[in-house]
Amino acid sequence: MTVNRQILLAARPVGYPKETDFRLVETALPEPAPGQMLVRTLWLSLDPYQRGRMSAGKSYAASVEIGAPLIGGVVGRIERSASPAFKIGDIVEGWLGWQDYALAEPAALRNVDPALAPIQTALGVLGMPGMTAYFGLLEIGRPVPGDTVVVSAASGAVGALVGQIAKLSGCRVVGTAGSDRKVAYLVEELGFDAGINYRTEEVPAALRAACPNGIDVYFDNVGGEVTDAVLAQLATGARVAICGQMSQYNLEKPDLAPRNLRFLLVKQARMEGFLVFQFADRYPLARQRLARWIADGRIKYREDVVEGLENAPKAFIGLMRGQNFGKLLVRVAAA
Amino acid sequence: MTVNRQILLAARPVGYPKETDFRLVETALPEPAPGQMLVRTLWLSLDPYQRGRMSAGKSYAASVEIGAPLIGGVVGRIERSASPAFKIGDIVEGWLGWQDYALAEPAALRNVDPALAPIQTALGVLGMPGMTAYFGLLEIGRPVPGDTVVVSAASGAVGALVGQIAKLSGCRVVGTAGSDRKVAYLVEELGFDAGINYRTEEVPAALRAACPNGIDVYFDNVGGEVTDAVLAQLATGARVAICGQMSQYNLEKPDLAPRNLRFLLVKQARMEGFLVFQFADRYPLARQRLARWIADGRIKYREDVVEGLENAPKAFIGLMRGQNFGKLLVRVAAA
Repeated sequence: MTVNRQILLAARPVGYPKETDFRLVETALPEPAPGQMLVRTLWLSLDPYQRGRMSAGKSYAASVEIGAPLIGGVVGRIERSASPAFKIGDIVEGWLGWQDYALAEPAALRNVDPALAPIQTALGVLGMPGMTAYFGLLEIGRPVPGDTVVVSAASGAVGALVGQIAKLSGCRVVGTAGSDRKVAYLVEELGFDAGINYRTEEVPAALRAACPNGIDVYFDNVGGEVTDAVLAQLATGARVAICGQMSQYNLEKPDLAPRNLRFLLVKQARMEGFLVFQFADRYPLARQRLARWIADGRIKYREDVVEGLENAPKAFIGLMRGQNFGKLLVRVAAA
Repeated sequence: MTVNRQILLAARPVGYPKETDFRLVETALPEPAPGQMLVRTLWLSLDPYQRGRMSAGKSYAASVEIGAPLIGGVVGRIERSASPAFKIGDIVEGWLGWQDYALAEPAALRNVDPALAPIQTALGVLGMPGMTAYFGLLEIGRPVPGDTVVVSAASGAVGALVGQIAKLSGCRVVGTAGSDRKVAYLVEELGFDAGINYRTEEVPAALRAACPNGIDVYFDNVGGEVTDAVLAQLATGARVAICGQMSQYNLEKPDLAPRNLRFLLVKQARMEGFLVFQFADRYPLARQRLARWIADGRIKYREDVVEGLENAPKAFIGLMRGQNFGKLLVRVAAA
């Protein structure tokens, strides 16, 4: 191989991204400078946060420039190493972007243990989504046994874990998702107490039925009308973890909605936004616990695998519309 | 005296309350049953929360029934006592309502020490508004020295104290208020670092100028557009205390606004609603500290006194429109 395929941001999406917002280019295989590694991408992670990086607006991280490769988490294999830190064949994880190969400094890579779990879980249940679910629920949501926990986008990479960790924490768990198949998965496979199809059900009424004592913890991945309905049904002392606002990422103009801060006041409720990075010093502990729960069969996860880097844009567009079912991954090369 | 004047809720206000929503009636002076006290109202407190009690909607406390006396905090004098707990002439405080006289059980009354401060401060700086400011700022807002603190309705009974306690806490303090006179009071009398007239200034631009490093703590008494502007300028790790939503209390239909939870996410910010009652076990400590600060001249307070129970409705209507300047009190009888 002497060619590196990269997917660049061709244009800033207006509303939902479309295929012409992406461009696949072939560039020369880069040469590692002293101290660098050349990494072959095996798995690329597609995640909702990437939509924010495609926009120009200031956020917690810099935007991707037009013409630059899109950013994303990758699990790859060391192909060439000019550093003693990693040897050829090592499986690593890092923010290496939408491309076949990447150069990386040792500090940008983390070793993945293939004996612990399938390596692509380093992008899912044992990676950023897993850390997000673990810390967001336990540190921001702070569930206690007997709480009613609602999670939105509950069949997604983060939501499915949130619900299962909440069950392990002794809670009643209700999830919202966008299809009957997903809702059935929550209840039948993951052990949720109830699921709500937000596309076909009347969410306020369905929540009232599923949460007769109100909602103690809400883990929000979506914002919008689902969140409106939840906030109106908070229990006294509720905690709301704001993890994502997926319903808002592809709007061409701001969504207007009734103000709802009064619900926080009346219910003495706390709402807190978080970025998983704030818990980075404790990732190893969380990874260990999640791996144990998986090994013990107490936590399940589901992957939605797309073959080929060239199909990443289409898969990402589907992710924005909720068409994936489980953690969305692109298999870029065989391990 | 054999007559008790009472102000009843005549009709549930639609939008802003009007005088016909209230009715003054004369009833027979009630007779204390064994264990009860008859209390002569000296001061009646008018506070924004009372608007909520005039509506039928479920909230954290029951609504006032049509035809019942309006509820409110009172400082009064024991006129007749059938309990050893209080003696005639004692000055007491309690939720005794909009009336000349009230019957009360001992548990519903608290002794007010006239030597500590003027007795009506038991309804203001040493009463519910004072406790609200003290605990809401210190326990929910959690300011640290160097923080930029913004408080809305900053010249009001709660806001003026919040700003001054934030100054004592080593913060930069910015207040919003509804007239140039109020803004001048904040800066010139209370030592705020800046004030913004939300009726005449462009709030987002004025906030940017006054808070160049973003807003670390926001103490919200008003909600609405002022709060929208603040949320867009939160600093990383900001804390927002939701104390009141005055701008929303008199709306005939819900105010639509752009959704803003993304600001919490991006800034890892916390927003928390509170009711002062949750801190009731620590009121004595807070009262002691506030009284000391007043005695030392470190905290100032301003009263807006209306004479005569019969003028309470008009004064309350003015409160809803921000026409008071300082803690609004009705002097019902001379002490």
